[in-house]
Amino acid sequence: MVHQKPDEATADETSISTQPPSYNLSQAPPVYKVGYPQKKNLTTEFTNTLRETFFHDNPLKQYKDQSASTKFKMGLQFLFPVFDWGRTYNLSKLKGDLIAGLTIASLCIPQDIGYSKLAYLEPQYGLYSSFVPPLIYAAMGSSRDIAIGPVAVVSLLIGSLLQNEVDHEKNKEEYLRLAFTATFFAGITQAALGFLRLGFLIEFLSHAAIVGFMGGAAITIALQQLKYVLGIRNFTKETDIVSVMESVWGSVHHGWNWQTVVIGFAFLAFLLLAKYIGKRNKKYFWVPAIAPITSVILATLFVYLFRADKHGVQIVNNIKKGINPSSVHKIYFTGPFVAKGFKIGVVCGMIGLTEAVAIGRTFAAVKGYQLDGNKEMVALGTMNIVGSMTSCYIATGSFSRSAVNFMAGCRTPVSNVVMSMVVLLTLLVITPLFKYTPNAILGSIIISAVIGLVDYEAAILIWKVDKMDFIACMGAFFGVVFKSVEIGLLIAVSISFAKILLQVTRPRTALLGNLPGTTIYRNTDQYPDARHVPGVVIVRVDSAIYFSNSNYIRERILRWSTDEEEKVKAEGLSKINFLIVEMSPVIDIDTSGIHALEDLHKNLQKRGIQLLLSNPGSIVIEKLQSSKLTEHIGSNHIFLTVADAVRFCTSKSMQEP
Amino acid sequence: MVHQKPDEATADETSISTQPPSYNLSQAPPVYKVGYPQKKNLTTEFTNTLRETFFHDNPLKQYKDQSASTKFKMGLQFLFPVFDWGRTYNLSKLKGDLIAGLTIASLCIPQDIGYSKLAYLEPQYGLYSSFVPPLIYAAMGSSRDIAIGPVAVVSLLIGSLLQNEVDHEKNKEEYLRLAFTATFFAGITQAALGFLRLGFLIEFLSHAAIVGFMGGAAITIALQQLKYVLGIRNFTKETDIVSVMESVWGSVHHGWNWQTVVIGFAFLAFLLLAKYIGKRNKKYFWVPAIAPITSVILATLFVYLFRADKHGVQIVNNIKKGINPSSVHKIYFTGPFVAKGFKIGVVCGMIGLTEAVAIGRTFAAVKGYQLDGNKEMVALGTMNIVGSMTSCYIATGSFSRSAVNFMAGCRTPVSNVVMSMVVLLTLLVITPLFKYTPNAILGSIIISAVIGLVDYEAAILIWKVDKMDFIACMGAFFGVVFKSVEIGLLIAVSISFAKILLQVTRPRTALLGNLPGTTIYRNTDQYPDARHVPGVVIVRVDSAIYFSNSNYIRERILRWSTDEEEKVKAEGLSKINFLIVEMSPVIDIDTSGIHALEDLHKNLQKRGIQLLLSNPGSIVIEKLQSSKLTEHIGSNHIFLTVADAVRFCTSKSMQEP
Repeated sequence: MVHQKPDEATADETSISTQPPSYNLSQAPPVYKVGYPQKKNLTTEFTNTLRETFFHDNPLKQYKDQSASTKFKMGLQFLFPVFDWGRTYNLSKLKGDLIAGLTIASLCIPQDIGYSKLAYLEPQYGLYSSFVPPLIYAAMGSSRDIAIGPVAVVSLLIGSLLQNEVDHEKNKEEYLRLAFTATFFAGITQAALGFLRLGFLIEFLSHAAIVGFMGGAAITIALQQLKYVLGIRNFTKETDIVSVMESVWGSVHHGWNWQTVVIGFAFLAFLLLAKYIGKRNKKYFWVPAIAPITSVILATLFVYLFRADKHGVQIVNNIKKGINPSSVHKIYFTGPFVAKGFKIGVVCGMIGLTEAVAIGRTFAAVKGYQLDGNKEMVALGTMNIVGSMTSCYIATGSFSRSAVNFMAGCRTPVSNVVMSMVVLLTLLVITPLFKYTPNAILGSIIISAVIGLVDYEAAILIWKVDKMDFIACMGAFFGVVFKSVEIGLLIAVSISFAKILLQVTRPRTALLGNLPGTTIYRNTDQYPDARHVPGVVIVRVDSAIYFSNSNYIRERILRWSTDEEEKVKAEGLSKINFLIVEMSPVIDIDTSGIHALEDLHKNLQKRGIQLLLSNPGSIVIEKLQSSKLTEHIGSNHIFLTVADAVRFCTSKSMQEP
Repeated sequence: MVHQKPDEATADETSISTQPPSYNLSQAPPVYKVGYPQKKNLTTEFTNTLRETFFHDNPLKQYKDQSASTKFKMGLQFLFPVFDWGRTYNLSKLKGDLIAGLTIASLCIPQDIGYSKLAYLEPQYGLYSSFVPPLIYAAMGSSRDIAIGPVAVVSLLIGSLLQNEVDHEKNKEEYLRLAFTATFFAGITQAALGFLRLGFLIEFLSHAAIVGFMGGAAITIALQQLKYVLGIRNFTKETDIVSVMESVWGSVHHGWNWQTVVIGFAFLAFLLLAKYIGKRNKKYFWVPAIAPITSVILATLFVYLFRADKHGVQIVNNIKKGINPSSVHKIYFTGPFVAKGFKIGVVCGMIGLTEAVAIGRTFAAVKGYQLDGNKEMVALGTMNIVGSMTSCYIATGSFSRSAVNFMAGCRTPVSNVVMSMVVLLTLLVITPLFKYTPNAILGSIIISAVIGLVDYEAAILIWKVDKMDFIACMGAFFGVVFKSVEIGLLIAVSISFAKILLQVTRPRTALLGNLPGTTIYRNTDQYPDARHVPGVVIVRVDSAIYFSNSNYIRERILRWSTDEEEKVKAEGLSKINFLIVEMSPVIDIDTSGIHALEDLHKNLQKRGIQLLLSNPGSIVIEKLQSSKLTEHIGSNHIFLTVADAVRFCTSKSMQEP
């Protein structure tokens, strides 16, 4: 136990005084010493740390005091939430899900065809990926609003990563096999992260970096669509804005196809108008939702009737009819492609997770239900593993379709099932009708879909709130736009990590002063009223003291004291005799931190300054104790509050004038 | 500005009361609002951040208000501290440096020969590295106690990394060239880190990991010496303990040379005895210091007189005579070896820095002078760059020799110059005398030197203070001993980083209670006296709220409130109406953190709980403001202290019974 000498520790933080705290024994209120927590044994300590790290949501709590059969039932419901919400499913819910499902189906079919082009895959693979994965998710997922399927950013990412390894034109079959392999490993990654409860790993991508990355990817995707909207045949394979614009302007005289341009821009205008209407009045959310399929039908009819394909308008041509074939035998389990597929899968899987979890959380917050991130990951992972075996590429939650799903009034994941059934019908029956669909219309649909990912409002907010974050955001954005998705992603991840590391190595310290008339001590920077206590420097350390910052903290505290000494000398005030380190925010300390405090203590002693500590937390005081540092500093130099410590200083100064 | 309605903000933290704080207007002391710092403009903010990150020691302070010529002189003294301490150099200092220099020279000569064997280099390279680098350091370095030269751990590391790329037996010349290339890049790395003021990067290796790594490396090095001490000719090239012990026991019957064993162990016993004497009585520090050279002389004489080399005792044979030849032309500046040399150089350079800076800091703290880490790095880097061009391999500060230097009474870096001169003499005159020196004696010297690196006392302290640190320590230790130096180093770095990341993602939160009779609120875990306030949950968040932990913090706070609600329900107490988040330790918040607080606010609102904030710091309140979150929460719900917030809650509850 850390004891304070009773005469020094009359903790009258509550004494009324308009003077700086005086040493007053008469109205002594209760005396409190710095608390010393019960020693926990090693296993308890370990279990606690592990639990906080991996099971902070305490998932097993509800299983307590239940019979074995109930436990089994609950476990089943946990893994397959369909058994949970399915029991209370009714007609009214079905109505909502039916409308929502049909709406997102009409949105997803043209998007799927377009997105598969981004991934350099044939159009049917996009549709396949909107058939199987949503079914699996409906059984295992717990978000009620997410719409599952291929998404733009992940399609762009997987396409550009795969293309780095295998050329999709020269080695079509290998490319496809690698795509399935990557999807398989993406699923494994997602499921493993969830199962091992490592879901927090995706939180190392900062919000700002994601905003920048998404915005950049959206612009890159939109630029890629110029190929279709302008009908350019010789288009660069690079994705950076400079190459793309060169391609576009270089072919302006004989590369553009005016019929295509007319179709493309006419429908783009129509789609953007629809979007605007939907945004202006939430009641008309269905306008932008059905606009794409309407455009597809109109444009296809138009091309078919006028045989515009004979005039250079590029069309989709044949989409393979029929449902997903098995692709188990196509996944590489041996050979050099395994490692490549694994790498690509991990990257795309993580990005897919980031997107899906963000969507899930957003809508869960709006409707007010809780979402278990780790469970979601298992569901998404399983869905992609099964997907990779049934000719699907990576599917995840789509921002735009989930929003439509939500606004169309979905109630449960059944809307995904409805969408899936519509896609099934499409695959079985309607695909031949897409023969004459012009590529331009798909380009327009994608442009109008991804434009919403450029979240400039978020960027403005980031600028206002945190300039460092804004740099991260812009770094990722420009990396994607001017270089490539991989570089942008790398920048986003690096900046996120750099920020964490900087935060850890350069914690803040603040000089405290007394708010006159109280026993409150606050940052003199924030509270200009706060007054220095003569002869005493009070420094608050705003972070745990770890190896990564212990040297900095020691030197920074020394600098505070030197600065104050100089100021005192210049102003001819009384000499500094005490340095109080306010440790309330210091939640932990490690061996390097202990060494730093020891060095600080020695250094101050040499200069005739006494080191006092105020309010160390339970873990800190325990470690100070076990390293015998409390003895060096003197356990009577450790106080519950800054006010107590200051009172000790003033009484000491009065004793030794 | 954040305003509190005056009637809610009568901050009488100072009121006397043995009841939980009551709403008391009569004795109103001064009222303080949450401070809102002056808006800094962008450039100031940026400059401040940059300064805190890179120039926190304010190195240019002394140059202020000086004339140009003084500035130049000071700059020269800064770069070459020899101009600073040289001016006050006198005979008494020289005496100390002379004795210390001679002592460390006698220690370094046999060590150098042995260490160069660890790096798979010929013995003269070890001696070269004790000649040039110390001279450069003496002019540029600012530590007065460090002894420069090759060291065991870095020699082992560079040897094993180089051997992975080029075999030292088959491609001797290439191996040597790659060694110089690595040394060159190690120097560049060190100088660049110092020059760019990125020295803090080496602080990402935790103290615990270093202790483990050093201990493991020491044991590996000692095991390697068994080859020489036992006279085994066919020795494994692996460094893990299993392979080495197999080599040792496998050759026990016909591989050991008994004459070698006798010499080796006799002198090892002598050296350890000398070490023990030196440790028992600080006065006899010179006994272990001169024991190695004595052993070498005695053993060489013995071998020469009895021609023991004819009986299988392996000897050093010829060491090339003469001073360092130039090696500029041997450094690879083009070709595939550049990248390899660069990689090895960066790793070895960082480890060398870690060791030198740790030594420098230790002795600076003992003698009470300040050491500029970044400046040291520039000095060490320059010394290795010059070294790489004069046939030296990586030199750094040696633990054992620096300690001897210190105890022998060195006063300035002149002791390094003295040592360097003795090595020069050795190279010019004495090398032929080493012909008959048995390898066994070098092995014994190295064993007795590295044994001090196994710092079991530090390991015990680490165990006592922090169990997680201990795992890091043991991980690095066993990684080195059972696998290899690289793996050990990798484990050390990974665990260090994992610890940082874990600390950032899983910050602590605590439930606060009122210490009866005061207005102090403390962790109920640490202070069992602290009482819950009815109807109010008070949670303290012990960390900045960033993207990496914002979700965790939100969920953890929600869990605290749910847990409390359940407890309240079970005990039939009054319903929870308020949740106070004590934000004193929250030093910063980013956009993700703002979102998390917003979600928290919404979620609590749905459950009829009001969110209050207490004591947000200056940066936090500014960001809450600019993101308009203060408006959502209500600026009258933000208080200076927990006590104020509680008072608001109780008065509200009284109004609405």
